[in-house]
Amino acid sequence: MLAAVESFASRGYHATTTRDIAGAAGMSPAALYVHFPSKAALLFAISESGHQQTLTLVETVAAGDESPREKIRRIVEDFVAWHARRHTIARVVQYELQALPEQEYAVVKDLRRRIERRMRDVIAEGVKQGAFAVDDVHTAARAVLSLGVDVARWYTDRPGGKTPEALGHDYARLVLRMLGAGSEPLTEESHTEQAT
Amino acid sequence: MLAAVESFASRGYHATTTRDIAGAAGMSPAALYVHFPSKAALLFAISESGHQQTLTLVETVAAGDESPREKIRRIVEDFVAWHARRHTIARVVQYELQALPEQEYAVVKDLRRRIERRMRDVIAEGVKQGAFAVDDVHTAARAVLSLGVDVARWYTDRPGGKTPEALGHDYARLVLRMLGAGSEPLTEESHTEQAT
Repeated sequence: MLAAVESFASRGYHATTTRDIAGAAGMSPAALYVHFPSKAALLFAISESGHQQTLTLVETVAAGDESPREKIRRIVEDFVAWHARRHTIARVVQYELQALPEQEYAVVKDLRRRIERRMRDVIAEGVKQGAFAVDDVHTAARAVLSLGVDVARWYTDRPGGKTPEALGHDYARLVLRMLGAGSEPLTEESHTEQAT
Repeated sequence: MLAAVESFASRGYHATTTRDIAGAAGMSPAALYVHFPSKAALLFAISESGHQQTLTLVETVAAGDESPREKIRRIVEDFVAWHARRHTIARVVQYELQALPEQEYAVVKDLRRRIERRMRDVIAEGVKQGAFAVDDVHTAARAVLSLGVDVARWYTDRPGGKTPEALGHDYARLVLRMLGAGSEPLTEESHTEQAT
């Protein structure tokens, strides 16, 4: 799977052959075939795993007892850091959807719907409690997810760049402001943060 | 060029042949060759044109006399609407960079740098005037551009969806809040907008 991720990310899904992947994994094409009967099966395994990881990350925080503000802060921190840290797999996950066969695409699409729904639910909860001021929860949720997803496109591990965690922290603050949460920290553990 | 955009967007750059493109354009491969000696030359022409269009859009607003707040509002409206309206070409522009030959990549990279620099300049101008409250101008500029770029990934022309203009309008409001511009309209022409 890692060999496939690298191959798909560097030359694109369509231009990669199962022979390339087997070679990169140090296996014979026949040995690869035992685990994955097709290139599409490999893409699906990678895509499903990546989507499941990000869904779990969002659902774990969303199911907790914290305030909507704290939930959004943690979801954005984790979601952004994941897309930075795992930017190679994230690129395959986010940009090779259309290469999935119809049935597999439906499974992944369902995972994506659940991620968006969770995000909308947390934002809507915050609006209801007066913590956020958002006209259009759907557009706001899309924008928050977009900020995280696009990190996979531009993030590199170059020295001197922000760590995935630092980027997640900065983006969480930007997102809270975007949602109208104000700049003042509302939770105790945030009281030491500089208010901007 | 349009035939190439469609082909690259639907099957990916690497899996597209010049024969595919010539066929889609209703030309012979030899006739296509007269205009574009290689597939890479076509990709470069598309990428350069797309980047030049978005740079012009940003520079035109940035060079004006309006306040930084009004400039950001207009830039985000135009940049987001462009990525929605031209989402097929925008996908090629944003996601096929690594397929460009080295020299052509350098040209496109310079256009990208100029877009980012203009965005940073306008944000920095706003911070200086006290209109925005941003710790890290570089990260904020990256986030604002990310919101626009990622629109190309998910936007579709489905009926009932937001128009490119409506999306640009909504995103501009989210971005102004993200930059700490507050929710109250500061410019005269915005006074009629609903404050959230």
